[in-house]
Amino acid sequence: MDAETTLQELRTRVQQFVEARHWDGFHTPKNLAMSIAIEAAELMEHFQWCDVDAAGDLVADPVQRAAIADELADVIIYCLSFANSAQIDVAAAVQAKMDRNEKRFPVS
Amino acid sequence: MDAETTLQELRTRVQQFVEARHWDGFHTPKNLAMSIAIEAAELMEHFQWCDVDAAGDLVADPVQRAAIADELADVIIYCLSFANSAQIDVAAAVQAKMDRNEKRFPVS
Amino acid sequence: MDAETTLQELRTRVQQFVEARHWDGFHTPKNLAMSIAIEAAELMEHFQWCDVDAAGDLVADPVQRAAIADELADVIIYCLSFANSAQIDVAAAVQAKMDRNEKRFPVS
Amino acid sequence: MDAETTLQELRTRVQQFVEARHWDGFHTPKNLAMSIAIEAAELMEHFQWCDVDAAGDLVADPVQRAAIADELADVIIYCLSFANSAQIDVAAAVQAKMDRNEKRFPVS
Repeated sequence: MDAETTLQELRTRVQQFVEARHWDGFHTPKNLAMSIAIEAAELMEHFQWCDVDAAGDLVADPVQRAAIADELADVIIYCLSFANSAQIDVAAAVQAKMDRNEKRFPVS
Repeated sequence: MDAETTLQELRTRVQQFVEARHWDGFHTPKNLAMSIAIEAAELMEHFQWCDVDAAGDLVADPVQRAAIADELADVIIYCLSFANSAQIDVAAAVQAKMDRNEKRFPVS
Repeated sequence: MDAETTLQELRTRVQQFVEARHWDGFHTPKNLAMSIAIEAAELMEHFQWCDVDAAGDLVADPVQRAAIADELADVIIYCLSFANSAQIDVAAAVQAKMDRNEKRFPVS
Repeated sequence: MDAETTLQELRTRVQQFVEARHWDGFHTPKNLAMSIAIEAAELMEHFQWCDVDAAGDLVADPVQRAAIADELADVIIYCLSFANSAQIDVAAAVQAKMDRNEKRFPVS
């Protein structure tokens, strides 16, 4: 689905979800920045005690990978709600950052 | 740009960036989960001492918002690298999670 | 108890707990840094959607405060295990940092 | 110093520092929970791209270890300010949690 899905489609879905529940007052930039960090920690928890090989096995296992994908989705959903709340164009921000990264770390 | 940019376009750009620098060995799921959490904390740092009103002012200021967008981009870039590393379809994961959220929190 | 308990007493208890379970191989600085961040996020989760007043109410409620104290304990336990693993004198590090903070932010 | 320093001594120093600067209004439980998470991420940043061996070398190097000790101090200082703000007895919370951990994970 990544090949056909635009960021805007996902943003709109998240925005409608938040608005339909009248959660706009909670989905402030400060609370959403916290939420992104909380979900990032839940993703990290899967790898807390793993060495590199064990982490590879984890990701290769379909059941574990589904649970991990679910945590990654939570991070991204809050990122999109943050973008909605702060009116940030995510693709433009990512492309601009990648432009800078490419200059900062030239291919040798 | 969000309206026209697919997740796959951004994923591919991130993947080519990582591969061209031979960073695949560092961009493991464990290290990337840490990286997402680190960048999430940097985003949060902008709001550390703000009350809700001050956070609104921050996001409304163009210079501050550009800095905040930059941190959000870092979170998302590492999420996309994680998705590349763990072979996760981001849009599918987000849509599946939103399906579940909608059932879990019905509109009253 | 804080008045009579030294950091060393708590560090020793954590170290004996880890050694008795042969967890030394897992309690590496990298894994423990992740663990501190994960527990910090769980502490933060209590305040995710609160405004300042609601957060005050939360902390004033004995049941909630016990749950919050429990999360704070987790953060500190991992900090002490990290200090054991990396051979850091916590009190010296805190005092040195407070010395610098006092110079950096002089009382006006 | 850990052998002689009580938690209360460090708590009192942090409290006096905060009060002398009239920062009590900022050092709320919500803001301090964020601060703990932010400093935990800065500690984690030292180990972001390390494998287990490289992390061991890092901690063994005196200059690196001093920088790492400094980040650990920041986490602990905010934990102590949180304990001051929420009126939590840190030693009691840690001992109670260790009691439970010992029951939950019996030595085999």
